[in-house]
Parts: sequence; structure tokens; C-alpha cells
Amino acid sequence: MTTPGFNPDSNPPDSNSVDVALAMDWGGTWARAAVVDRQGTILWQRRVANQPGAAQDALLNAAGSLVIAAQEWAGDRTVAGAGIALAGSIDAATNTLLSSPNLPALNGVSLPARWEPALGMPVWVGNDANLAALGEYYYGAGRAAPPHNRPARTLVYVTFSTGVGAGIVDRGDVFTGAAGAAGEVGHMTIDSRADAPPCACGNHGCLEALTSGAAIARAAQNRLGDAAPGSPLQQAYESSAVLTGEAVFAAAARGDAVAVAVVDAAVDAIIVGLGNVLNIFNPDVVVIGGGVTQGLLALDLLGRIEAGMRRRAMSSGQRAFRLETASLGDSQGMVGAASLVWLQTGRQ
Amino acid sequence: MTTPGFNPDSNPPDSNSVDVALAMDWGGTWARAAVVDRQGTILWQRRVANQPGAAQDALLNAAGSLVIAAQEWAGDRTVAGAGIALAGSIDAATNTLLSSPNLPALNGVSLPARWEPALGMPVWVGNDANLAALGEYYYGAGRAAPPHNRPARTLVYVTFSTGVGAGIVDRGDVFTGAAGAAGEVGHMTIDSRADAPPCACGNHGCLEALTSGAAIARAAQNRLGDAAPGSPLQQAYESSAVLTGEAVFAAAARGDAVAVAVVDAAVDAIIVGLGNVLNIFNPDVVVIGGGVTQGLLALDLLGRIEAGMRRRAMSSGQRAFRLETASLGDSQGMVGAASLVWLQTGRQ
Repeated sequence: MTTPGFNPDSNPPDSNSVDVALAMDWGGTWARAAVVDRQGTILWQRRVANQPGAAQDALLNAAGSLVIAAQEWAGDRTVAGAGIALAGSIDAATNTLLSSPNLPALNGVSLPARWEPALGMPVWVGNDANLAALGEYYYGAGRAAPPHNRPARTLVYVTFSTGVGAGIVDRGDVFTGAAGAAGEVGHMTIDSRADAPPCACGNHGCLEALTSGAAIARAAQNRLGDAAPGSPLQQAYESSAVLTGEAVFAAAARGDAVAVAVVDAAVDAIIVGLGNVLNIFNPDVVVIGGGVTQGLLALDLLGRIEAGMRRRAMSSGQRAFRLETASLGDSQGMVGAASLVWLQTGRQ
Repeated sequence: MTTPGFNPDSNPPDSNSVDVALAMDWGGTWARAAVVDRQGTILWQRRVANQPGAAQDALLNAAGSLVIAAQEWAGDRTVAGAGIALAGSIDAATNTLLSSPNLPALNGVSLPARWEPALGMPVWVGNDANLAALGEYYYGAGRAAPPHNRPARTLVYVTFSTGVGAGIVDRGDVFTGAAGAAGEVGHMTIDSRADAPPCACGNHGCLEALTSGAAIARAAQNRLGDAAPGSPLQQAYESSAVLTGEAVFAAAARGDAVAVAVVDAAVDAIIVGLGNVLNIFNPDVVVIGGGVTQGLLALDLLGRIEAGMRRRAMSSGQRAFRLETASLGDSQGMVGAASLVWLQTGRQ
């Protein structure tokens, strides 16, 4: 089996010539840049808010200045290249951002083409969920752990947040699919009935439509009439005139019957979705992250999820997984973007 | 992007030293062996029926003799190695057959360990659906075709037969997952309601439970009471006291209303399942095969399936696929097993 990855614990033989990577995590609200070493340590970081409604050039200039600042900070260190994590789908062949719901002004832009001349180094871009998976693979939940004490072979990272996204890393490399759009696990239909909840993507019964923070909030909203007056859920609704996923988890923690039922239904759907992930990808490490995962952790529901996944796995090979929570916190995107630099550098 | 594959159209530089591969397709009924060249041409083949209820040694000896016969036929040709396609899940690390519903006597067997000493050459084993995908990738539906006239990057092969299985090939290599058990697309739940049809795997609402030949037969059986006396479906049932998927397709072709409704429901489920495949794997080539696919072809339903898949795809990257039917016929398993030899030989 080929293993195209890199070893995060050892500098390459010519370690004097490869020192740090520039990394950027560019989301809908912030652009964050960092200087990251080969061991995944963030040596320097800075962030800048995207100007709301800014035109393409203004956005690119603000973020580009941040990368230049990172390069300046790196000073005499040898910089292997720059890695950029973007929320959107990226064409694998052209490195062009095909569509970005959170940064629509960047659609059609190739960051390598824009930034390589000024930086004088190679620039690689990747989808944020894919790079989060890559960061967890090399520097987080994918590292050697009990009981087998060996690093992940196949890691699937699923973020249950406002939406549901995923990244797949197999033998050290991101599985991108033909055009860079693989991993839309959130848009796997798990309830194909006509009356299944609608999804933002236009289909019905997607994993995202049943398990995202927005879906949990909507389900609770729809059942608000069942909640007793003065119940935690009613209180949460009355105090802000809107329900969030977070508020539903908080109400469930206080024993609110409707909130508990809504969370239970989401847990059942998460088990189906992650069971499908086991049967389809046969990962040995499944990592979950995002705000919904925090809510599940607070309610101590991860054991139930893991047991349910194991019941749905087809064979002993598929049952041999460990379920982990994302371990890199806020640094996930930047560490993942730096991993992409080390991975691509190793290929050259 | 690394491309670990091989070029089926050109012999390697040392083409005098690599000439043919031995290939075996070992299913529940037959063991078939072949000598296959690098262009995918079957030069010689022979088959032997598995003795029903035979013990492990007897089964292994009968199939082993067939591989020896292939080796003898190859004579002076240089043989690169032997590839074996098996119906079952194979541990990627040990090459051991973990479980084989159709050949349970072989559970726990490592064919490389058993056969390499006698053959004096490397032996590789693979799951039959994975190797069918590999064969289609290099020698069948994955080859360059209009409109883009380039070979597949990411090919997913799904067989809709008595059961539903799949194999994934990305950039020339099989996606096996951590333990060799990836690709159980048939056991992706697409109807998570409690009253969804049960599946042989123990879950409910799997793609297989809604779209396999057995599922289609069962759905028609359950609705037999709705069929008018003397209708094609009733006639088929009365002539053999049992319904098969094939009989349901034949009755649908004759306009039987119940059979048409059952096929329509299966088509809807196939669209959901293959739509999920698009969103999860982002293949540029989707290949479908098996008896159910033959039935769909006869009813001219592939256009409807392709249009439905395209509607369910998330992004332009995911819509850029072509839907093909399996093109290697009976040779699929043997050509796929030979592909594994060329792929592994290229790695050494």
C-alpha cells in the first residue's frame, strides 16, 4: 500500500532547508494567518475580519496582506510554501474556488495564480473540512492512541455545526474525488421519504437536515407547542424570540422533555449517518467536531453514539474504529493548511 | 496529485520481463482462472465448480490446481504474479479473508501464504467488487470516452444484483479503507424510518434492502394481492410459485401495474443511493452492473436515473459525471484480478 504522507515528528533529511509553512484559515467572518512549524506548532498568528460586502479585490488584498505579514515574521526561516483553507468547493485540477457560500465574492478565483508571484513560493488551497481532517490526521485525533497505539490509516472527520461537512484522509492523503468536491457527507440522504425535513441543498432528509445545529433548532421550534409553559425550552424561546441549537442542548440538560426528544432524534440520525460512514469508508478513526458535538459531549451522549455506530457496522473490519472528538480547537484550520504544505512539499 | 496507477496501453520499459498475469475469479459457484496480458486480453481460461459443502482443503486444492494449470499454460511467458478476486471482505494488512458469505469454508485463509510457495510468484487478493471496479477503470467503462475524452479520475462501480456491492477506484488505486472493508454502499441506510424494509445485514432501509433483485422480488411478493388475476405478475407467480427480480422486470415490460410501481420505487431508491455516491465520493464515472441493471436497461430507465442523480448532486463538480453500464461482462472479475497484479507490480 502506498503511503504518500509525511512524518510530522521528524524533519526531512534536508531539515535546514524546510523550516516553516505559512497557513491561512479563511472563513466567512475572519481570515486568519499563521506561521506553523513541521511539528504543528503555531509560532505566530494574526487575524483580520472580512469587510462585509467587500468586492473581490478588497477581500483579496486584506487577506493577502496578512499572508505577507506572516512571511515577514518568518524572516530568515526557510518557508516551504503557503497553504490556504477555504470554506467552499475547490476544483482539484485548477485550484479555482468553484463556489463558496460564505465568501461568494471569491468564486472563480485561483489563489495560487494570484498570490504566488508576490510571495515567491508555492501556494496550495484546500477545502476547510478536508484540511481540518488532514490536520487532525497528522497532529490531532489521528495520532497513535490506545488500544492499538498506531496512527490512523483512514480518518473521517465530520463537523456537526450550523451545517454538516466532512473530510476524508486515507493513508496520509486527502480523498478529494474527481473534481475536489468529495466528502459532502452532510448531503447524504438518510431519510428518503417525501415528508422528510427539507435541506438547504434542495433535497430532503439529508444528514445535515436532521443533525445540524440549524436542524436541531428548527425541529425544536416546530415542536414548541408541545413544550409546557415555563419549560426550559419555552423560557429560552421567550428570552430571545428564536431558538438556537445551543439553546436546545441547554434546555435538554435541564430536563426539558421536548428538547430531550429533539436531541434524541438528532442522535438517532447521527448514528445512522456515522454508521453509513463506517460501511462506506471503513475508517479506523472517526472524528467529530463542531458546536453540536459540544452539545452532545455536555449531555454525555458520545458513548451512545459509538455503541449505535458499532451495531450498524457490517463486519468486524468496520467495527474496528475509535470515535474521537476534534482536538485542535481553533487551530484546526491553520494546522490543516500547514499539513497541506508538508504533504505537497513531500511530493515535489 | 499522486497517480499510483499503471498505463494499460503500454508495456513497461522492461516489457520482456513482464508478460502476463494469472487471474482468478472465485465466486460462490465457480472458480475461474485465466491468463491475461497487460492489454486486458484473456489468452486462456478455465473454470471448475466448487464442490458443495466441501471442506477448506478440498476447495483450496481444486482452485489451486486451476491456478497451476494457468501457470502451465503460460509456459515460457514471464508471469508477473497472480491476482485473486474473492466474494468477501479481505483484511488489507494480512490479506486474510475475514468473512465470505458465499465461501464460508475459506474464512481466515490467506491465499498468498497458501499459494505463493507452490507458484513461486507473488499472489494478491482483493474483494470482487473492488476488483471489478479496478477492471472497469483500466479496461472498461473508465477508459477515455466522450464528451471529455479522458479516462476516469474517480470511478465508483455499483453492482445491483442479488445483493448490492460497490468498489471505488481513485487515481488508479482501490480505496480499501483501514481494514479492506470500504465500499459497502449497499449497506448505506437511505430510509431510516422504523418501518423501512429489513436488510440481511440486520439494519433497515439499506440501499440493498430497497434495490437488490431480492428486494424487488420481495416488494412484488408483498403486493401480489394488488395484482389483477391473470396479470403478468400473477402469471409469473403461478408458473413458478415464487417471484424473482427478473420476473418482476419482465412483468413491468408487459405493462403490469404492480410490477411497474415496484420498479418505479426501486428506481427512486437507486437515484437516492447513487445521488449519495455523487455527493460523498465525487466520481467522474459511475458504473452500474448486475442483473437489476440489465432489467433497468431493458425498460430504458437509465436516462431517468442519470437525470435524477444530477438533480441530487450538490455542486457543478459533482454534476460532472457520466453514468455507464459495466462493459467487461463475464470477464470483469478476471480482468480486475489481473489489474491488481499490474498495479502491485508497478509498486515494487
